[in-house]
Amino acid sequence: MPQNPSQPARRRPSGRRSGDSGTREAIVDAARDLFAQLGYEGASLRAIAARAGVDAALIRHFFGDKETLFTTTVVHRSNIPERMATTFAGPIESLGERATDAYLQLWQEEETRGILLGLVRSAMTTKHGIEPLLEMLGGRVRDLSSDASGADPNPEQLALAAAHLFGVAVARELFKVPALVRLSHQELVERVAPAIQSYLVTEPN
Amino acid sequence: MPQNPSQPARRRPSGRRSGDSGTREAIVDAARDLFAQLGYEGASLRAIAARAGVDAALIRHFFGDKETLFTTTVVHRSNIPERMATTFAGPIESLGERATDAYLQLWQEEETRGILLGLVRSAMTTKHGIEPLLEMLGGRVRDLSSDASGADPNPEQLALAAAHLFGVAVARELFKVPALVRLSHQELVERVAPAIQSYLVTEPN
Repeated sequence: MPQNPSQPARRRPSGRRSGDSGTREAIVDAARDLFAQLGYEGASLRAIAARAGVDAALIRHFFGDKETLFTTTVVHRSNIPERMATTFAGPIESLGERATDAYLQLWQEEETRGILLGLVRSAMTTKHGIEPLLEMLGGRVRDLSSDASGADPNPEQLALAAAHLFGVAVARELFKVPALVRLSHQELVERVAPAIQSYLVTEPN
Repeated sequence: MPQNPSQPARRRPSGRRSGDSGTREAIVDAARDLFAQLGYEGASLRAIAARAGVDAALIRHFFGDKETLFTTTVVHRSNIPERMATTFAGPIESLGERATDAYLQLWQEEETRGILLGLVRSAMTTKHGIEPLLEMLGGRVRDLSSDASGADPNPEQLALAAAHLFGVAVARELFKVPALVRLSHQELVERVAPAIQSYLVTEPN
C-alpha cells in the first residue's frame, strides 16, 4: 500500500519537490524507458530512481512496489490499452478478427512484446493477485473506447476471449510451439478469430 | 544430453548396479514422490538421488538434467497422458467437451495440479525449448489412445486447442481471474467446449 501522499518523503533529492505530479510523471517516464530497455526483472527501482533524479524511497512512497509501478507504466505510458480499445470500433461482424489481430500483433513488436512479457512475469509472481492489474488495464481500455461496435460481452466471456488469446500468444511466442510458430500471423488470426468472435459477441438471452 | 549409457558412472553407491533399468526405475519413482511433495523447484536432484539410493551424478548420467527427469516422470509415472488419451475414446460429437472436462479437471486435483504447475515452470525456464517435452507427452498420449473417436486434427489445430485450454487454466487457477474463478467447473466446460470441439474436429477439405 502506498503511504499517505501528504506524508513527506524522508529525503528530498535537490532540485525536485516531492509530492507534486511532476515527480510522479518523471518516475513513470524513467520506468517506461528502463522497463523497455532492461525488462521487468532487469530494471531496478534504484536505477529508475536514479534516472528520474529522485530517491528510491520516493518511488515506494508514491507507488508502493515495483509491480504497481510497472502496471501504472503499462497502463499510462504504453499504447497497449489504446490499441486494444480501438479494436472495439468497427463492424461487430469482424470484432473477433480485429481483437485477435491487434493482440497477437502486440506480441510481434519488440517494444510491446517486452511489456507483455513483463506483465506475464509480474502476473506469475504477484503478491497482490492479478485483479488490480486487470482493473487498471480494463478501466483504461474502457476509458479509451469510443464508437463501440455494439458488442457488450459479459465479464466471463471477455475473460475467456482474453485467456484464449493469452494461451495462443504464450504457446507461440514464449514456448515456441512448432505447430504455431510455422503459421503466419495472418493464418493464425484466421484460425483463432472465430472462437474470439463467438466469445465476444454473445447472443442476448 | 545424456552421456553414452555404456560409459560407467564414476561412483557407484553400494548395493546398486549402475546402468540397469532397476536403477532408472528407482530414480523415476523417487522423482515422482519428491516432485509431488515439494514441487519442481523444491525437489533437488541431490534429494531425489538420496531417496533413490544413488549418487546424484548417476541422475545426470541417465537423464541429463532436472527438466528431462521431470518430463520423464510426468510422462511415465503420472496418469496425465492416460487421462488425456481416454478423452479420444467416445463419440466425436462430444470430443471437445470430454477434452475440456478432462484437462480442466487435472488442474482441480492437488496431485495433477502440482505436476501441471511444474510443467508450466519447466516450460517457462527451459533451455532446450518445449519441443522435447511436447514430443514426449504427445507420443505417450498417442501410444495410449485406442478406440479413437475418428477425429484426426492436424498439429496446428491440436496446438490451438491445447493453447486455449492452457490459457483458460492459467487464467483461472494461477492468475485467479475473478470472472473465471466464479464459474463452476461445469459452467466453464460448457462455455469452452464449443471452441475446443471446432479446433479438434476439423472438416476434411
